[in-house]
Amino acid sequence: MKAKLMSPAAWLLAIVLACAATAVRAQDPLPSWNDGHAKSRVVAFVAAVTDKAGKDFVPPAERIAVFDNDGTLWSEQPVYVQLAFVVDRVKALAPQHPEWKQQQPFKGVLEGDLKAAAAAGEKGLLQLMMATHAGMTTDEFARTVTDWLATARHPRFGRAYTEMVYQPMLELLAYLRENGFKTYIVSGGGVEFMRTFAGQRYGVPPERVVGSTIRTRYEVRDGKPVIVRLPEVDFIDDGPGKPVGIHKFIGRRPIAAFGNSDGDFEMLEWVTSAPGPRLGLIVHHDDAAREAAYDRGSPIGRLERGLDEGPRRGWTIVSMKNDWKKVFPFEP
Amino acid sequence: MKAKLMSPAAWLLAIVLACAATAVRAQDPLPSWNDGHAKSRVVAFVAAVTDKAGKDFVPPAERIAVFDNDGTLWSEQPVYVQLAFVVDRVKALAPQHPEWKQQQPFKGVLEGDLKAAAAAGEKGLLQLMMATHAGMTTDEFARTVTDWLATARHPRFGRAYTEMVYQPMLELLAYLRENGFKTYIVSGGGVEFMRTFAGQRYGVPPERVVGSTIRTRYEVRDGKPVIVRLPEVDFIDDGPGKPVGIHKFIGRRPIAAFGNSDGDFEMLEWVTSAPGPRLGLIVHHDDAAREAAYDRGSPIGRLERGLDEGPRRGWTIVSMKNDWKKVFPFEP
Repeated sequence: MKAKLMSPAAWLLAIVLACAATAVRAQDPLPSWNDGHAKSRVVAFVAAVTDKAGKDFVPPAERIAVFDNDGTLWSEQPVYVQLAFVVDRVKALAPQHPEWKQQQPFKGVLEGDLKAAAAAGEKGLLQLMMATHAGMTTDEFARTVTDWLATARHPRFGRAYTEMVYQPMLELLAYLRENGFKTYIVSGGGVEFMRTFAGQRYGVPPERVVGSTIRTRYEVRDGKPVIVRLPEVDFIDDGPGKPVGIHKFIGRRPIAAFGNSDGDFEMLEWVTSAPGPRLGLIVHHDDAAREAAYDRGSPIGRLERGLDEGPRRGWTIVSMKNDWKKVFPFEP
Repeated sequence: MKAKLMSPAAWLLAIVLACAATAVRAQDPLPSWNDGHAKSRVVAFVAAVTDKAGKDFVPPAERIAVFDNDGTLWSEQPVYVQLAFVVDRVKALAPQHPEWKQQQPFKGVLEGDLKAAAAAGEKGLLQLMMATHAGMTTDEFARTVTDWLATARHPRFGRAYTEMVYQPMLELLAYLRENGFKTYIVSGGGVEFMRTFAGQRYGVPPERVVGSTIRTRYEVRDGKPVIVRLPEVDFIDDGPGKPVGIHKFIGRRPIAAFGNSDGDFEMLEWVTSAPGPRLGLIVHHDDAAREAAYDRGSPIGRLERGLDEGPRRGWTIVSMKNDWKKVFPFEP
């Protein structure tokens, strides 16, 4: 069969259309963001710091952007993903701990009575964390998390948690990196928990993940060195801990910070109060239909001070409802 | 005046010579290293991990190399540079602390009787560290270190401490980076001390410096956020602390490690005992004429286990005397 040849005019048209499509893509690095203040602000900031001739030029080495994770890059509702992991691990480990049936907060977790578990307070949460996060090697822990993420599903969406990431934020991460930024995660979540998926999911390598840590110990077991996770908190990377973590792990002040709750307040304050061009952005969860609507008074991801003080500090408040065309990558 | 023109033959000769010089340089990325086992081992390792067709190829993202600092990248004799800083700071701060005249270890430091100061043991050293390293903001501390490094001189060589770096190791750092490696410092020294010069001196940016840390606190002073250094040890990045620090800050296992003392033993063990191509290298200080000769029993930079076990673990022992053409950049 002879292939039908396109006329020269049709070829020309095809080429023009392809070029136009490319040009549109090139002009819009953030296709899931609606046009508006938030998107313009981000694009103008990136243009300013990458313009060699401009007064706000920042050399690539200093283009450091920090992102909170829970509620900023992926969903934190109805509970933090790492807390869902804790619950599942307690259930999985319960046969080896018959005493948990009588002991809060474990009893509550096993019986699905999270209110009773929560009544054990911060000490109870710490007990849960240590029972599920310590006492194994770092390799064993990473494997457990990876296996769990492969099978666990979000209670409302029925999707893997690694699908519960925000498409507009994935685009933002990529856009910043294309413009010479180093993108870091700076999260209250456990650093070893996040490192298992941050590379594949966000394009953020292990050495650019800053988070909460527990103490570890180096050991040689049967001639093979391992690092063992100990049941002791080392560092909590939340609130005023975020600038501390940034300074400790990164060692210089970022020029852009992205968060969603008051746990990110000090990070945004630290980043945006330095001289020179700075970008502070808060993702406001105001989309109950596509995800969840919460801010003031929410037990998870409370956002109050950021809403009140953010605008006069020059921070951009992103409305998920209005600023985002799409929330999750799996949306049609 | 008319410029004298070169003949075509002279031009040709000049071009051939320039190309030949370039070729020699290209063939020898480590000009201050003598030909021998150490240099061949390094070059063969780099060739193997960068050969896309070879069985030992390592993707650039995983090409992580870790370097001890004191005694590996710069001189640690007669005392650690940071200890010389402590001594000078105690002297500078003494007028504000009249009680130090009667109090060890300060008294010993002020009177130049380091033996008396050392008798105060680890607790005394900690007191000296905290008196000189804590109680100021991180910016103030960095400025103090920078100012000190600009004026302090090595007691034997009369050079700035930042000149007391090893030329062959500077070449090695650059050579690895040219081959897609990320070069990190992993040192027992203070991370904020090292970050002040690691960029300019070693080409290692702040976020690739891992070291010992003291606790810090985020504060807002008169509306201006600062990070304050507290008189509490946070983490000691030495011995078995080095793999712990690597895991915490970098989050993946390097493929090459460079050290000089038994404080680097666990780091080399951790790096070289993983499967795949691995390089472990120990700088042996055996050159009393050009620098210093010390190993077993030395109070600073003791090297015993590394010498005994290194060779059968496949680690390369570098003889500064025989393997290095030049020790310091300022040598003729």
